[in-house]
Amino acid sequence: MDNDFVKEITNIDEDFAQWYTDIVLKAELADYTDTKGCIAIRPYGYAIWENIQNYTDKKFKETGVENVNFPVLIPESLLEKEKDHVEGFAPEVAWVTEAGGEKLEERLCIRPTSETIISTMYSRWLKSWRDLPFVYNQWCNVLRWEKETRPFLRSREFLWQEGHTIHETEKEAMDRTLMMQEVYADVTENLLAIPVIKGIKTESEKFAGAVATYTVESMMRDGRALQSATSHYFGQNFSKPFEIKFQDRDGKDAYAYQTSWGLSTRLIGAIIMAHGDNRGLKLPPKVAPIQIVIVPIAQHKEGVLEKVEELKLNLSNKFRVKIDDRDKYSPGYKFNYWEMKGVPVRLEIGPRDIENGECILVRRDTGEKETVKLDSLEEKLDVLLENIHENMFKECKKRLEEKTSTAVTLDEFKNTMETNQGFIKAMWCGDAACEDKIRELTGAKSRCMPFEQEKISDKCVCCGKPADKMVVWGKQY
Amino acid sequence: MDNDFVKEITNIDEDFAQWYTDIVLKAELADYTDTKGCIAIRPYGYAIWENIQNYTDKKFKETGVENVNFPVLIPESLLEKEKDHVEGFAPEVAWVTEAGGEKLEERLCIRPTSETIISTMYSRWLKSWRDLPFVYNQWCNVLRWEKETRPFLRSREFLWQEGHTIHETEKEAMDRTLMMQEVYADVTENLLAIPVIKGIKTESEKFAGAVATYTVESMMRDGRALQSATSHYFGQNFSKPFEIKFQDRDGKDAYAYQTSWGLSTRLIGAIIMAHGDNRGLKLPPKVAPIQIVIVPIAQHKEGVLEKVEELKLNLSNKFRVKIDDRDKYSPGYKFNYWEMKGVPVRLEIGPRDIENGECILVRRDTGEKETVKLDSLEEKLDVLLENIHENMFKECKKRLEEKTSTAVTLDEFKNTMETNQGFIKAMWCGDAACEDKIRELTGAKSRCMPFEQEKISDKCVCCGKPADKMVVWGKQY
Repeated sequence: MDNDFVKEITNIDEDFAQWYTDIVLKAELADYTDTKGCIAIRPYGYAIWENIQNYTDKKFKETGVENVNFPVLIPESLLEKEKDHVEGFAPEVAWVTEAGGEKLEERLCIRPTSETIISTMYSRWLKSWRDLPFVYNQWCNVLRWEKETRPFLRSREFLWQEGHTIHETEKEAMDRTLMMQEVYADVTENLLAIPVIKGIKTESEKFAGAVATYTVESMMRDGRALQSATSHYFGQNFSKPFEIKFQDRDGKDAYAYQTSWGLSTRLIGAIIMAHGDNRGLKLPPKVAPIQIVIVPIAQHKEGVLEKVEELKLNLSNKFRVKIDDRDKYSPGYKFNYWEMKGVPVRLEIGPRDIENGECILVRRDTGEKETVKLDSLEEKLDVLLENIHENMFKECKKRLEEKTSTAVTLDEFKNTMETNQGFIKAMWCGDAACEDKIRELTGAKSRCMPFEQEKISDKCVCCGKPADKMVVWGKQY
Repeated sequence: MDNDFVKEITNIDEDFAQWYTDIVLKAELADYTDTKGCIAIRPYGYAIWENIQNYTDKKFKETGVENVNFPVLIPESLLEKEKDHVEGFAPEVAWVTEAGGEKLEERLCIRPTSETIISTMYSRWLKSWRDLPFVYNQWCNVLRWEKETRPFLRSREFLWQEGHTIHETEKEAMDRTLMMQEVYADVTENLLAIPVIKGIKTESEKFAGAVATYTVESMMRDGRALQSATSHYFGQNFSKPFEIKFQDRDGKDAYAYQTSWGLSTRLIGAIIMAHGDNRGLKLPPKVAPIQIVIVPIAQHKEGVLEKVEELKLNLSNKFRVKIDDRDKYSPGYKFNYWEMKGVPVRLEIGPRDIENGECILVRRDTGEKETVKLDSLEEKLDVLLENIHENMFKECKKRLEEKTSTAVTLDEFKNTMETNQGFIKAMWCGDAACEDKIRELTGAKSRCMPFEQEKISDKCVCCGKPADKMVVWGKQY
């Protein structure tokens, strides 16, 4: 049998990390490069990113976002203006110290994020309350010098969008922060078919320089958490040191209220780890570069390739379709190949099918096979792709529920984390020392305080003091 | 009168360079930043870039281009592999020497262009002739440490796309090189309304490492040339040092044939300088972020703003429309403002117009004004925007023709260049020494050897030796 692809992929239950790397490389999503810790995103991986971009950018623009572009290099003196921010990011930046054949007077860092350079420009552009809000975003690359890297999940360079807004009032800025968290939840659930938990980060997990960080958290197949995207409320933390001031409605000087928010190519890692299986990648239909692959059977026989071309032409108005007519490979090889590449639907069509006016349709998510009349195919596919999305979402949701437990004591927390490898809902007193202790003992970090709170008990799971906040805890990517 | 915008802009005939800078800043296309030589592209400027991207990316994909992303950092050892390439680019790169708190063992440059890192990956991915061609492109930022910078035209960091392809045969690679030159000519003429001269660069003007560079050259309002985009044929210049090898149809090892091609945010500079005038920016309709601005007259009167909203809603299906209902400014101020911003069409509508079921329509390109019935407005605008494009193209074409002279002797060349400030068609023997001499004497460089050759004489304009190549010469941006 032609299943060398499946053989080459490490068993998902035996070594999830190696399985992940295998998928990234074999499905040709990305590859390692000579620039350590940085990847090359190959066409199949980049096409997924383009689908994420198109969907997200459209949602952004519906809320009034305008795109811009700021420099990739930030002078050291700017990075240092906000104390918490520089502490958070300076250790992991890359420095340009020479350029154009000369040593620079001031080091320039490659942006790890752009609050500082953007705040500087905002302070120059903003004059009056009439100019507000600025709701700008950039799609760009950033660099963070991580020690341990993994393709998509933790790459030194990655692609992302970073939105940066300033507002007249606290309320307006907070509304924008929450609105963008909603957009991210929509992208993750409705495009990527991955359910999320919406919540707010604890103090120790928030973004360097933020007042508060809002997050959408998801669970991967191995029970670990992946932070899909975050939205930060800054209050006036940046607008004061950067002097983002304006004349308010009463003619007085006022500082703007600020937000920033981002999602990145990490999401490609999330797609792989939330949906994949032992046959390979499994792509949600809306984000799949190829939604339907047509594999001709006995393609050398008269009329087969012509029919397949005709079919593709008809379906291409609505779907992203590819024909695999490589004559070097058998149909069996192609079936495995496209399953490994995660294409949601496969159509097989040979001389007898053509005679009968039908084809065989195979779903990647369930493996179900059925014979479909060609004249009802388009209609069928319309509904089917939607069903596949829903089914993939439901599978993830089921896992999220099954792998989420509660704990009232630290012992229970520890045992559950060891046996169930997933999320734990437990009460927390608000003390960072308890977070530290839990992490040391169990490896789990606070993921967020979900908006949907439950009362698991009335005491902190760690120190036993009174507690009214429920936190979701888990190991993370 | 309310024409402070026009007053603030330097007269185009007095100081073209200052006029250019004024437009960039006043029309809020871009601004200087604290990172010397790097600009921030503001929403209005970036929206032009997005329109260029969308149009170009679609054309690319129609020819089979796939998008990818390679690292922004390139190890020094890779940059050095191709001798001419490193000589051309090494002097103007920026070097990362420290990262993550440590000194790096090997310097990493910020990509000035990505031939080297991409060739390395191609050599890894390519196995057989069956894998070919690779037709990949990336939209990204690059950095070249220029001494003198100008917004868009010569910025240290700029945005561009760089396509990189490898092919089985010389012919296929050459076809691709010329095909992409055609795409660039299409973008420049049909999107930006700027006529081009298509040709090939002389040896001394070609890309560092290329066998041949194909170019589309345009003329700006002041008679200077701007290279709009280039397409390079590499032959095996990179595939040999980078070992981009494959097993050919006979089972033997063969080196691939390679191309690269790019256009950049320079094109925004071209739009400004090809079309602008003393009233400000003048945007070709297809690339204008706002195609139609509606200015309500007596907007406080009952029904005016409602009618204007209704009009916008109707037109927005087909056009990019904006209402300027700022109550702080008079209609006169707004007229000047949107002329300065280059919006192709302005509609003025007040209570009397509404009563009569009409509005006033003003063209930015000719300044013509007419009264149009509201019920035929959409139809009218459809044709009008096309006409404006054609008219703007024709204006540029006329200038290109008027400012292009011929010269048979060096004296004639020099005099014509001094009096007419434009392009000169003159014969050239093929010797780089003649190019150098012409540049020293007149400031003009060879722009290209146009595909459409004419026989101006049979002797080199410089040395008088036999010559059969006609070159277009001009001062450049």
